[in-house]
Amino acid sequence: MAGSVLDTPGCGAEDLPLSGPAPPQPETLVSTPFPWQQPIAAPSEPHRQAALHRQAQLTKPAGSLGELESLAVTLAGLQATNLPRIEQVCIAVFAADHGVCEEGISAFPQAVTGQMIANFVAGGAAISVMAKQLGAALEVINLGTVSPLPIDDGVIDEHIAPGTGNLARQPAMTDDQLQAALAAGDRAAQRAADRQADVFIGGEMGIGNTTSATALACALLGEDATALTGPGTGLTPEGVAHKAQVIAQALARHGTRPEPLAVLASLGGFEIVALAGAFIGCAVRGIPVLVDGFIVSTAALAACQLRPQLRPWLLFAHQSREPGHQRLLHALDATPLLDLSLRLGEGSGAAVAVPLLRNACALHNHMATFADANVSNEN
Amino acid sequence: MAGSVLDTPGCGAEDLPLSGPAPPQPETLVSTPFPWQQPIAAPSEPHRQAALHRQAQLTKPAGSLGELESLAVTLAGLQATNLPRIEQVCIAVFAADHGVCEEGISAFPQAVTGQMIANFVAGGAAISVMAKQLGAALEVINLGTVSPLPIDDGVIDEHIAPGTGNLARQPAMTDDQLQAALAAGDRAAQRAADRQADVFIGGEMGIGNTTSATALACALLGEDATALTGPGTGLTPEGVAHKAQVIAQALARHGTRPEPLAVLASLGGFEIVALAGAFIGCAVRGIPVLVDGFIVSTAALAACQLRPQLRPWLLFAHQSREPGHQRLLHALDATPLLDLSLRLGEGSGAAVAVPLLRNACALHNHMATFADANVSNEN
Repeated sequence: MAGSVLDTPGCGAEDLPLSGPAPPQPETLVSTPFPWQQPIAAPSEPHRQAALHRQAQLTKPAGSLGELESLAVTLAGLQATNLPRIEQVCIAVFAADHGVCEEGISAFPQAVTGQMIANFVAGGAAISVMAKQLGAALEVINLGTVSPLPIDDGVIDEHIAPGTGNLARQPAMTDDQLQAALAAGDRAAQRAADRQADVFIGGEMGIGNTTSATALACALLGEDATALTGPGTGLTPEGVAHKAQVIAQALARHGTRPEPLAVLASLGGFEIVALAGAFIGCAVRGIPVLVDGFIVSTAALAACQLRPQLRPWLLFAHQSREPGHQRLLHALDATPLLDLSLRLGEGSGAAVAVPLLRNACALHNHMATFADANVSNEN
Repeated sequence: MAGSVLDTPGCGAEDLPLSGPAPPQPETLVSTPFPWQQPIAAPSEPHRQAALHRQAQLTKPAGSLGELESLAVTLAGLQATNLPRIEQVCIAVFAADHGVCEEGISAFPQAVTGQMIANFVAGGAAISVMAKQLGAALEVINLGTVSPLPIDDGVIDEHIAPGTGNLARQPAMTDDQLQAALAAGDRAAQRAADRQADVFIGGEMGIGNTTSATALACALLGEDATALTGPGTGLTPEGVAHKAQVIAQALARHGTRPEPLAVLASLGGFEIVALAGAFIGCAVRGIPVLVDGFIVSTAALAACQLRPQLRPWLLFAHQSREPGHQRLLHALDATPLLDLSLRLGEGSGAAVAVPLLRNACALHNHMATFADANVSNEN
């Protein structure tokens, strides 16, 4: 499944480490190379500067549109254009099951992963409703559920295995499975490029995946399980304490050395690894990414540790209620646009933020300048 | 101009004071009664309860859509419906000039008020671009500029005077002018009702109006000028200090007793008073209001002090950068939806928030229930 297109493992020459001196050495950990190890371009500085200049001419006090100004300037740089736009929005929801569910770490039964996949394509889930409202393309990608799903034309089948291994007791996945998940994400990025996406949103579904994401966040950040573990879909305080114990057990078993590919293989979910692959694949293809909440931010942090030049391509949509999210955003030097107490996943928090991006582009492109409108500038 | 339709001044019998025991006694201060002193209904509790019940059935962990759930429930109660909707959005931008500009309290020349009125109707201002993007109806209402504007079919002429008096040295307006401004706001609410508005946004434009709004906020809240004065459209720190002195002088001259009509007449702008009238007019007619930033929140606080039953009809869009805004929101017991460092006015911060309301309604109305989608609920 993971077809190799380049034989150069490791970071590209243009990448500088995000923090710390040692570049990752995936060839010692993973036998097959990335299919997506192509260069990532920097945003266009001339277009960013031109956008800043234009913002200063628009009929408003300088800076008074706050984050909407910054968004327009950032998008102009990423899209290398004087007319940034967010028309074509591509949403890919990656779904998979998690072996760690056998530890009793979720408020919902594991069958819900497959049931929600059906709900996504039937149009009844939150992200389905939001995608329709945005006029966005919505893909649902099944990377492996415990029970086979009925064939459904609406679901993209990227089956790797019937869920991951139980990360508390064994590696979540093999190196080949890791590569397969990364490649599945990369293929989603290619489909977004084929659709000429102006922005990409990755969502996730997988009962048990806040346990995987929290374990990943702890390993990548060097934090304790108790510091980052939260209620996920709605655990009681006792449930949260048990979940933290399971995560602590996983961290003790796998160690905490922050080599992102090894961490992803030990603790990841297929959908989280696919998100990391999709984000790098988007940046390689010049597509800005709007990052959702806690779980997706874990994938973003792992991906940025692998490819630091990814970071400028990521916009951050919202501050999740899940307690580990703030720490992830801090590590990514990210200030999210929204804080609406969301904690659903599916990409829903990113979808909510799309109108802000559209608004920012419309203002940038269509407001009059002081000269156009014969309005006096400051005294 | 201010036609009287009811002869019962003072608060309606259904109104309880928002704080403090003494009801306002407008008859001792204002000779003509409100044209809009009709009853304000409470939100429909049965519809609110039905909406809460439905939210608990939708295919998501309970509460995981955070503020989007609350918004849908609130709108269901206000609109007394099982299918809340935000299709027809009516935006009214009230503009007027301010005599206090002769104290040198703004970064922009006073001519900008009239120039921006022209820019609003020509489509070049931020609120014009936003209204078009939302498919919203946009009205621009001129309550009085220092120089007469050319006749323009796009502007609603509600001329009261060529700007207010200089509030640092005299009352901003007479009681008759106060009534005229309130009535102009009420007429805007009637036009919104005629258009079957699902939500009303009031915006403002008036060079110098953060000085008026800050003075009003100080008087209504019992705060010092230095505590609430900010940079407005972009004053230097020295400019802010001078502005605070001017506001302190106004407060010393007019006193700080928090009788809202007297405070509005002494310190208000025509556009701020019109906003207060419009908000009460909307609540009387059953139209929810989405409140913009600092200046509009001053009008909202004055209006709520006049008519406490208005408060449930107000939704708060964003936290402005203007430093007095947080204090106003606290007094109104309001948590705004957005915090995007906006400080433009025009209703722009409220317009940015409209997609959140639309999103909340779409999710509430169109998501599948657990039973519909055959998805298992919590363990």
